[in-house]
Amino acid sequence: MVSEHRTADVSFDSLLRIFTVPEGPNSTLTQIEEKLSRNLNQFLREHIVAEEKPLIEIEKDFSNASIPEQPEFVSDHTQHLLDTLVSHSVHTSAPSFIGHMTSALPYFLMPLSKIMIALNQNLVKIETSKAFTPLERQVLGMLHRLIYSQDDAFYSKWMHSANHSLGAFCSGGTIANITALWVARNNALKADGNFKGVEKEGLFKAMKHYGYEGLAVLVSERGHYSLKKAADVLGIGQEGLVAIKTDSNNRICPDALKVRIAELKAQNIKPFAVIGVAGTTETGSIDPLESIAAICQQEDCHFHVDAAWGGATLMSNNYRHLLSGTELADSVTIDAHKQLYIPMGAGMVLFKDPEAMKSIEHHAQYILRKGSKDLGSHTLEGSRSGMAMLVYAAMHIISRPGYELLIDKSIEKAKYFANLIKEQPDFELVSEPELCLLTYRYLPPHIKGALASANIEQKAELNELLNELTKFIQKTQRETGKSFVSRTRLNPSQWDRLNTIVFRVVLANPLTGCDILNTVLEEQRQIAQQAPNLMAKIEALVEKVNAA
Amino acid sequence: MVSEHRTADVSFDSLLRIFTVPEGPNSTLTQIEEKLSRNLNQFLREHIVAEEKPLIEIEKDFSNASIPEQPEFVSDHTQHLLDTLVSHSVHTSAPSFIGHMTSALPYFLMPLSKIMIALNQNLVKIETSKAFTPLERQVLGMLHRLIYSQDDAFYSKWMHSANHSLGAFCSGGTIANITALWVARNNALKADGNFKGVEKEGLFKAMKHYGYEGLAVLVSERGHYSLKKAADVLGIGQEGLVAIKTDSNNRICPDALKVRIAELKAQNIKPFAVIGVAGTTETGSIDPLESIAAICQQEDCHFHVDAAWGGATLMSNNYRHLLSGTELADSVTIDAHKQLYIPMGAGMVLFKDPEAMKSIEHHAQYILRKGSKDLGSHTLEGSRSGMAMLVYAAMHIISRPGYELLIDKSIEKAKYFANLIKEQPDFELVSEPELCLLTYRYLPPHIKGALASANIEQKAELNELLNELTKFIQKTQRETGKSFVSRTRLNPSQWDRLNTIVFRVVLANPLTGCDILNTVLEEQRQIAQQAPNLMAKIEALVEKVNAA
Repeated sequence: MVSEHRTADVSFDSLLRIFTVPEGPNSTLTQIEEKLSRNLNQFLREHIVAEEKPLIEIEKDFSNASIPEQPEFVSDHTQHLLDTLVSHSVHTSAPSFIGHMTSALPYFLMPLSKIMIALNQNLVKIETSKAFTPLERQVLGMLHRLIYSQDDAFYSKWMHSANHSLGAFCSGGTIANITALWVARNNALKADGNFKGVEKEGLFKAMKHYGYEGLAVLVSERGHYSLKKAADVLGIGQEGLVAIKTDSNNRICPDALKVRIAELKAQNIKPFAVIGVAGTTETGSIDPLESIAAICQQEDCHFHVDAAWGGATLMSNNYRHLLSGTELADSVTIDAHKQLYIPMGAGMVLFKDPEAMKSIEHHAQYILRKGSKDLGSHTLEGSRSGMAMLVYAAMHIISRPGYELLIDKSIEKAKYFANLIKEQPDFELVSEPELCLLTYRYLPPHIKGALASANIEQKAELNELLNELTKFIQKTQRETGKSFVSRTRLNPSQWDRLNTIVFRVVLANPLTGCDILNTVLEEQRQIAQQAPNLMAKIEALVEKVNAA
Repeated sequence: MVSEHRTADVSFDSLLRIFTVPEGPNSTLTQIEEKLSRNLNQFLREHIVAEEKPLIEIEKDFSNASIPEQPEFVSDHTQHLLDTLVSHSVHTSAPSFIGHMTSALPYFLMPLSKIMIALNQNLVKIETSKAFTPLERQVLGMLHRLIYSQDDAFYSKWMHSANHSLGAFCSGGTIANITALWVARNNALKADGNFKGVEKEGLFKAMKHYGYEGLAVLVSERGHYSLKKAADVLGIGQEGLVAIKTDSNNRICPDALKVRIAELKAQNIKPFAVIGVAGTTETGSIDPLESIAAICQQEDCHFHVDAAWGGATLMSNNYRHLLSGTELADSVTIDAHKQLYIPMGAGMVLFKDPEAMKSIEHHAQYILRKGSKDLGSHTLEGSRSGMAMLVYAAMHIISRPGYELLIDKSIEKAKYFANLIKEQPDFELVSEPELCLLTYRYLPPHIKGALASANIEQKAELNELLNELTKFIQKTQRETGKSFVSRTRLNPSQWDRLNTIVFRVVLANPLTGCDILNTVLEEQRQIAQQAPNLMAKIEALVEKVNAA
């Protein structure tokens, strides 16, 4: 409880005090907030990825499953949080934390997010959100326009229409993708004659009515894992998520897609949706969206673009051509908490056709009544926060040209890093950056030579040892705490599609300077020398290959 | 951009500035934050529900679908937000805003939420959350223990186990309910012989393998609308969500449940889950959970308890007996953003059996690798914020006895209000409060008398007029802006289950005093007199009934 005297009694009066807005700038809570801000600012300013403490040690601080019987003072608990939580958090906004899709955030979002927390609106219905509802509808309209470029008349007709929704704001890309496929599934299995639609009668009856043996969603083998979840949840089954092979640039092969669709149809399996990826999570590659759109039109498939990460590129007039064809999609996923630099929990799905979401519309007696403008009638989630206001604010304060500059600089930085890697004799760029994401590995020239000339068996063996090395370097670098790159497994065509572990780097943080990139490589090179046993094994195998 | 000089250029240097932590307490941003805090505190202190402005007028401020080409200064935009957004928001924390499940929040959550926003952790994986992952696991453990009361050994074995999860933290009760039914569906249609399980092969093949004609989830007719969404999404179909009739206290009739299960089985429809509601959204009623549990055990059904709203009652040793039987459930939904007083966006689902979530487990190459402690392998959502830390903090600062006091006071306040309504000759209590939620309507004694003695036709007609009156009072009161109650439609047994519109009140805000409750009734009484035409119609019909 907030109190100058350390009485830790539970009384209703002390409880009432904690629910009451503190008076004046000298309240205890204001002082706590100031201390907290100073501490957080210091944390954010220190460019260290994480103070290293083994997870098992950290878990000891979070091991008690009993809800405390004794209240703590706010000041004491704040200190406890700073000691046990903040100091052992990941500095996701550090300029050298380049392994995931996190970044530094525009600092003005910290004070502005107070509006969201303090007003605690619930966007499921107008009655608990009022102006936040039109605001969210405008944000959806802005993103819709960014993708589909409809005219003013379109938006003044649909944006605030009670019975329509241009999309859904949601907690993230996974829910956005599920929503898109939910809409696509329900439209593919809609009411027809005596059949009342899959939403009413369920998937089993729908399949029998339409006479299908199965359903399929097609996506490149680089599609996001959330699509497997979506296929599972929606009753399609993970096997119904059909992976199409990619070319050497990790882009879906349209011909292979066509062939697969024909095969599925021959088996009486309905391919009801194709997903184009605009920025794969692992390599940042963009599928040939126009070709996919043409195939979808021919085959009467829902065309969804998963642009959760890459969608923000549309903000740049210099690079939006990379996403050509997105405007042909029936639906598009964009995460604002990725390259729109909004805090975690801001995803969106947009639909080209304002009528598309009818197939998932729902109502209730006490809210979401027909004709209301309640956003909840078209969302998978129910109660939701006013997160859209942070997107709204960032759009206004940064503006489109500001976002353009951020996107452009990120792409240029990735090109710089790709060139830097290529200049190093002992590193191999595994995937070229299309946007600001690339992959590479440590591969000294003599090992590379051996890998190229080895026979199939030796090649696999050597590659496995290299995988171990890459893993070792990545883990050690993370644990050292100065910088962080992530790792994933690819099947590069230049290495006969062997299972290859690579470093993965995302360069979205505007504070990441070129000097950091140099340092990251130098550190990796040094760490490689800290695994003498592994290096000895590799060298022995290289010798064997060379002797053959 | 933050700047003393009003240059509104877009330059990379000015962009870098907005991503950089401001130095010192006199920065522009610190001043903006102080102004904002003052303004928000003032908003929160004024006990007015909402400044009234027609929605159509508000929409004009949010009508431009173009992303701005010109950046705004943070200070200008903050003022813009205060004018157009904050001033037309709903004061959900006002003591007289008693229509929905919102409340004032403990004020210490405002500064503490800074930690969440500033650190911007992503809970999908350890690599972007570190200490936040064990913290969230502890919060899930605490809620699990609150429900299931397992011993220390249980929690030290399972709480931090890499391959297990005691539940899932999610954005809200809807996702929690969907997750529970997803798990239940997948366990009911699990791998068996050559069949690889519904998650792999999909619902159609699963049904054929198991030889079912349909699937069913049973819940009382008062179940939350999110369950319809869940049935739709999961491919069961809304018709597979079977509504069971309730008794005069809005509780499911166990005998009717048994009969319906038998009927479904006779039709070869598999009832794979039954949902008990612990606090219905419309009436706050609690189903007889122990009876449902016994039926579920007999019928081998998954037993889910939707305690999204009522679950917090378990915190009170004085009232937790009301939820007896919750501990027998296979899964339980609890929303922390309802009666645990956490900001919007904090739902949870807990599973009795630590192995239960295996049926929805998923992995990917770059994260959620097998054996990692990444929370993302057991959640429907992907990227998620560190919201669990606010639950953790509130548990420690308020403590269980503090929550107990809050819960007890809310229930007692509802009893007080119920008695107050009963004492008024011109109001009718429609549903008694079991927790802190009740429904009632304005019904002067002579109209009540006529309604009781009218013939079927007249009764329906009079009731419809009363519905119009209730609706008019509720809307006018909301628009007047001093207080807010919501409305819903019930079928009270005392009125032959006629479709009856009622006022709905939730008394969870500790700042709501008894004086406010008196005022709400007085205001409603006065508003009733502002509808002379409607009142005249009612009086004419009453006269007709009395003359007959």
